[in-house]
Amino acid sequence: MNNNLLMKEPTLLVDKQKCVANIKMMKAKADKAEIVFRPHFKTHQSATVGEWFREEGVEKITVSSVRMAKYFAEHGWNDITIAFPVNILELDDINSLAEKITLNLLVETVGVARFLDSYLNADVNVFIKIDSGYHRTGIWCENVTEIETLVEEINSSERLTLLGFLTHSGQNYNAEDEKEIIANHGQALRIMSEIKAYFKEKYPNLIASIGDTPACSRVDEFYGIDEIRPGNFVFYDLQGFINGSCHDTDIAAIVACPVVAKHQERNEIIIYGGGVHLSKEFIPTGEEKLFGSLVKLDDNGWTQILAGGYLASLSQEHGVIKVNDDLFKEIDMGEQIGIIPVHSCMTVSCMPQMFSTDGEELDLMK
Amino acid sequence: MNNNLLMKEPTLLVDKQKCVANIKMMKAKADKAEIVFRPHFKTHQSATVGEWFREEGVEKITVSSVRMAKYFAEHGWNDITIAFPVNILELDDINSLAEKITLNLLVETVGVARFLDSYLNADVNVFIKIDSGYHRTGIWCENVTEIETLVEEINSSERLTLLGFLTHSGQNYNAEDEKEIIANHGQALRIMSEIKAYFKEKYPNLIASIGDTPACSRVDEFYGIDEIRPGNFVFYDLQGFINGSCHDTDIAAIVACPVVAKHQERNEIIIYGGGVHLSKEFIPTGEEKLFGSLVKLDDNGWTQILAGGYLASLSQEHGVIKVNDDLFKEIDMGEQIGIIPVHSCMTVSCMPQMFSTDGEELDLMK
Repeated sequence: MNNNLLMKEPTLLVDKQKCVANIKMMKAKADKAEIVFRPHFKTHQSATVGEWFREEGVEKITVSSVRMAKYFAEHGWNDITIAFPVNILELDDINSLAEKITLNLLVETVGVARFLDSYLNADVNVFIKIDSGYHRTGIWCENVTEIETLVEEINSSERLTLLGFLTHSGQNYNAEDEKEIIANHGQALRIMSEIKAYFKEKYPNLIASIGDTPACSRVDEFYGIDEIRPGNFVFYDLQGFINGSCHDTDIAAIVACPVVAKHQERNEIIIYGGGVHLSKEFIPTGEEKLFGSLVKLDDNGWTQILAGGYLASLSQEHGVIKVNDDLFKEIDMGEQIGIIPVHSCMTVSCMPQMFSTDGEELDLMK
Repeated sequence: MNNNLLMKEPTLLVDKQKCVANIKMMKAKADKAEIVFRPHFKTHQSATVGEWFREEGVEKITVSSVRMAKYFAEHGWNDITIAFPVNILELDDINSLAEKITLNLLVETVGVARFLDSYLNADVNVFIKIDSGYHRTGIWCENVTEIETLVEEINSSERLTLLGFLTHSGQNYNAEDEKEIIANHGQALRIMSEIKAYFKEKYPNLIASIGDTPACSRVDEFYGIDEIRPGNFVFYDLQGFINGSCHDTDIAAIVACPVVAKHQERNEIIIYGGGVHLSKEFIPTGEEKLFGSLVKLDDNGWTQILAGGYLASLSQEHGVIKVNDDLFKEIDMGEQIGIIPVHSCMTVSCMPQMFSTDGEELDLMK
């Protein structure tokens, strides 16, 4: 930890070494499978962290909003997929982006395809969003006629070039166990392969894109898939540790929080660090909720997760840590305690600034 | 609704008329009880909304962080209570503030009182934080010896002036019913009166400060209390509506979210509006979760809550609305649907900008 780093308020810290190791791991996996690695940048939302990807040879990225696409385009990324249904109210911004970079959009209705073809001033690529089991959005994979109609609509348009099919197995974040994640992954491979096969004769170059961190962290098998888009793995988090996607030593982002009160009578420690810093995400544990795990800051960043304590509740600015007697004695007023967030994407989005453990401020989209 | 207001992304909207009515209501209540109205500004975090309070005669305010105190001090507020345990790491900022304004801090240990007395360069007022039943922080109200020791420590210090005792019945936000809120309020009045009475002979001018929105919205009785500090009432929210603190027509803040996909087969509508905009706060409803209620935007702002639909889940940028057949037909792609947030304080904290329904941008602390 850089001693010049002022951490008087809750401070979001990134361990660059762990982060780069995570990037190398996922890049190597994609290279081995000979597929495109198009990481999702919504987790870090940082041009600086983006450069760490670029240094590993990454050139294509995924984002979750037009705003985020603009930010990364301004930082030299010129092949960006916005993995979110087209919001027709953002036409002007989409047009500006499409004039500058290779922009890939998600389409799932003929209406939106026609809207884009009518109102775009520049060419874009599109993926058809497929629902392969998450049931959030996309065309349900069995509705082949609907998919086919959209394929033909896009191929008859002037502005749109169909790249292929994209899905997201978001249900893996709520999976009960590893078996379920592997099963979901297998299902996604099968579905995407079948859709490609259906169109292969007429459109032999269409690709299939998948990519959630739980599955991509576990498997090396991407049969029939051409591109993966995991994002969370860059930092991982408590959710990833608990669902088995990573070791706790792979987690590359924490929030350092000042200790502001201690309550011996109930073994509780109050930190300056609340829902506005960490987000209100939690992991249900029976009657209780787990809002974060604890680490100690040290010269190299932070320790492994501390036994004997956890973040038990969050209000707007306060966090309440429950600890055993030993940990209670070890943690002092005015010290900073590190919190491993439940969901790093949400925590990064809450925080106004981000620093490396070396004391470098990392550029953050705001 | 001002038609010049561009709402292409999720947009936080405030109905000034409702907001001012809420301010007038609470101010009148404090005036009637002849107690000080020191509203909590953590809900709106806005200098513009602060001016609406000033126009109603408010001069003293509460905030939840040193950062927020600095922001409002820069906007002309010169009597500010930071209702959060002193974070000794922020000494420099506390000193800067104490030199400029009447700064009131919360102290609950002799250690912190001594620290402040040793290191402050200017005088501050302090409240002793009392735990009257919430069990988050403060000295437990029955520990009279501990309270007395701290009173004497503060009174023997050079820099600190003891104003009195402060408590927060945060448990009222999780109360089962109105009866419980009223009971908690009664308990807070009794506890704070007893503490004042205990010190009355020696220190006749010490005051008692309470103030959560659920209790302050319901009662007119503040026997023994000198100051109230509610904050959430300025906007209210779904939580306040459901726990009976307000009518749905009193809710003064919503997020307008573009509709980006419709799924007839499961009566779901996808909005651009996720956890990064609304926060992940929810109201548990049996097996389901309620992440927000729906309103339609209209010429005057927005309608009452729509029957037949609700915000059923949130991911980072997506929201999933479940609707009946009628509402499904009424809501179109590219339309904005208004979401009543579960917890307005958290939503305001998530959003980068805030607008009035007249199209005015309201200054927001960032």
